[in-house]
Amino acid sequence: MSITAPAGFRAAGVAAGLKSSGGRDVALVVNDGPRRTAAAVLTTNRVQAAPVVWTRQAVSDGAARAVVLNSGGANACTGPEGFADTHRTAEHVAAVLSAGAATPEDEVGAGDVLVCSTGLIGLRLDMDALLGGVDAAAGALAADGGDAAADAIRTTDTVSKQAVAQRAGWSVGGMAKGAGMLAPGLATMLSVITTDAVVDPATAEAALRAATATTFDRVDSDGCMSTNDTVILLASGASGVEAGVEDLTAAVTEVTASLARQLVADAEGASHDIAVTVTGATTDAAAVTVARAVTRSNLFKAAIFGNDPNWGRIVAAVGTVPEDVAPYDPLALDVTVNGVQVCRAQGVGEPRELVDLAASREVTVVVDLHAGDASATVWTNDLTHDYVHENSAYSS
Amino acid sequence: MSITAPAGFRAAGVAAGLKSSGGRDVALVVNDGPRRTAAAVLTTNRVQAAPVVWTRQAVSDGAARAVVLNSGGANACTGPEGFADTHRTAEHVAAVLSAGAATPEDEVGAGDVLVCSTGLIGLRLDMDALLGGVDAAAGALAADGGDAAADAIRTTDTVSKQAVAQRAGWSVGGMAKGAGMLAPGLATMLSVITTDAVVDPATAEAALRAATATTFDRVDSDGCMSTNDTVILLASGASGVEAGVEDLTAAVTEVTASLARQLVADAEGASHDIAVTVTGATTDAAAVTVARAVTRSNLFKAAIFGNDPNWGRIVAAVGTVPEDVAPYDPLALDVTVNGVQVCRAQGVGEPRELVDLAASREVTVVVDLHAGDASATVWTNDLTHDYVHENSAYSS
Repeated sequence: MSITAPAGFRAAGVAAGLKSSGGRDVALVVNDGPRRTAAAVLTTNRVQAAPVVWTRQAVSDGAARAVVLNSGGANACTGPEGFADTHRTAEHVAAVLSAGAATPEDEVGAGDVLVCSTGLIGLRLDMDALLGGVDAAAGALAADGGDAAADAIRTTDTVSKQAVAQRAGWSVGGMAKGAGMLAPGLATMLSVITTDAVVDPATAEAALRAATATTFDRVDSDGCMSTNDTVILLASGASGVEAGVEDLTAAVTEVTASLARQLVADAEGASHDIAVTVTGATTDAAAVTVARAVTRSNLFKAAIFGNDPNWGRIVAAVGTVPEDVAPYDPLALDVTVNGVQVCRAQGVGEPRELVDLAASREVTVVVDLHAGDASATVWTNDLTHDYVHENSAYSS
Repeated sequence: MSITAPAGFRAAGVAAGLKSSGGRDVALVVNDGPRRTAAAVLTTNRVQAAPVVWTRQAVSDGAARAVVLNSGGANACTGPEGFADTHRTAEHVAAVLSAGAATPEDEVGAGDVLVCSTGLIGLRLDMDALLGGVDAAAGALAADGGDAAADAIRTTDTVSKQAVAQRAGWSVGGMAKGAGMLAPGLATMLSVITTDAVVDPATAEAALRAATATTFDRVDSDGCMSTNDTVILLASGASGVEAGVEDLTAAVTEVTASLARQLVADAEGASHDIAVTVTGATTDAAAVTVARAVTRSNLFKAAIFGNDPNWGRIVAAVGTVPEDVAPYDPLALDVTVNGVQVCRAQGVGEPRELVDLAASREVTVVVDLHAGDASATVWTNDLTHDYVHENSAYSS
């Protein structure tokens, strides 16, 4: 049930006709409180979709009542009209949710509604279909609606991604979508995380930023950062249990780490999930940068698709990171692939024939810089025929 | 004839058995003078092949008598033994060329021999085969040997790349190889440029750096910078005509621009050559950085393979460049693909259906930042099934 596992939340996912497949494409998540704490981490792309601009503003007060999400269109690069569409969507959600309000405090304003969209850039949304979908979703809201919501935000995702972390008296649930255009920059796709812990906005924000920095931000499927990336944390306080920033960060990280791993496992056309770990770095940032240089090498990614432990392509990628960014002695580099140290001190190590890449989907690469004590892992996928096919044959 | 078009040069290309194909794999280029001016631009990768380390040192006096090049092995990440192999190769070339020396001044030292290697990283060279190849190449040196030399440096190149620029009384000739692992960083492959103009080392160095900066450095086939990239300029002075830095730069640029364009046209598995031009930038550097962000987007490159003018992937890539690197207003972005302005002021422009990508191999993308007067073009290729195939099915 993911996002509806914590108390205080209802969700729904319905088919509104935005997706040509006819599948679910509108999701609604409602926080019934008693608290309405919210935080968001948004794409750092300078080209930002209308819903990203909207959500940044709407969440700035640390509170939100609902999130509406649609697949079937990113509403990015759609000009002032596209922003008006997002605004109208939020207003419609607010009106529908206010219809059953028992007291004035239960009334929802447009500024309490966060909006996420995903799909093709540069096309206006079919607003009739979307608003109809909002009505249907509002009618379908249920305390076990998490599965349907997670299904509705899929685009090229072959499966929905959900995760739950249980704690004593409270929990964290999450859902995410993302199969391509996955790259770091704070948040890398759409994700909604819920918790019934009692937390203040500052704690929610700190926990979410910390969790995304070490999980979603370390997934780099294809080096392409989206215009719509959004990760939202909603806290209902329904458990009555207060969570401090450390406990909340740990639980949210558990959920986002699981979701991030699920994203990698379902990346467009991939046949291998690759964990590139850089050890012996001077700082965490240096380790991440070096790992990312490897995960962005098309030659390396294509070699892994061919089950070829071509470590020359790894060291060549490591060598492109400037010295001021990641100090290390290039002559000291060690590279280990699936446990076999194929490169020692930048020279030939164990025979590459000892590496078996065909045996499993998961591949581990460890690069030791021998320059310090910091380390980091970045996940990516291999570069395959299916990736090229999915991203050339279809507009998305 | 390319590199043997200018007077004062002999060259050869022979099959030494380094390449499994049995094709030519050792090239020798000799500058018979009267001058032996030389300059080189080398990879900025921190992991440097033995021949790159050698050549940097050998050319530091501004002079060289010969260049020996081999395909069939990069001699990178081969440790001290690999460096000894390069040293031994240079000594062998020096000894062979000195055998026929008429006067002591005609004697060649190992420090007068530049070395280039290309092929798989992490394997020692077959030195018996290579030194035998040097003997054969020395015996085959000819004033019309440019074609054979250009053929011998090919790896996955389907054709050899050569170019000549004629001037009044002097000329510039060039050859290059490179089909994958092509990315900027000062030089992107192996290339030898020759001229019979009379030039001093400082002029040669300045002209070569200026020419590579605006040509080879603006080819970015797959974002992967090699450990072996080397561009060498040799000047014999045999024409007796002095060339100033401006004239020399223009002529060398003419040759390197042609070679760069040939590299793009023969990039591994590509079906489209894509010129990404960024206009309205505040500086040339900003224009290049933005263009490079687009040329490195796998999603954009895959869309072009699918003949899909998916401009959302272009603006998404443009948006990843930080503001301090390239100041511009994201809401002002225009994008034109093959002459059709599909994106205007970050919004929807002309219908994307008007863009015909299937009609020709060449694709032009123009991104107008509307922030200044600087512009730059970076060339890349589409991301195709054949690229994945060539780089997954074969170690190279």
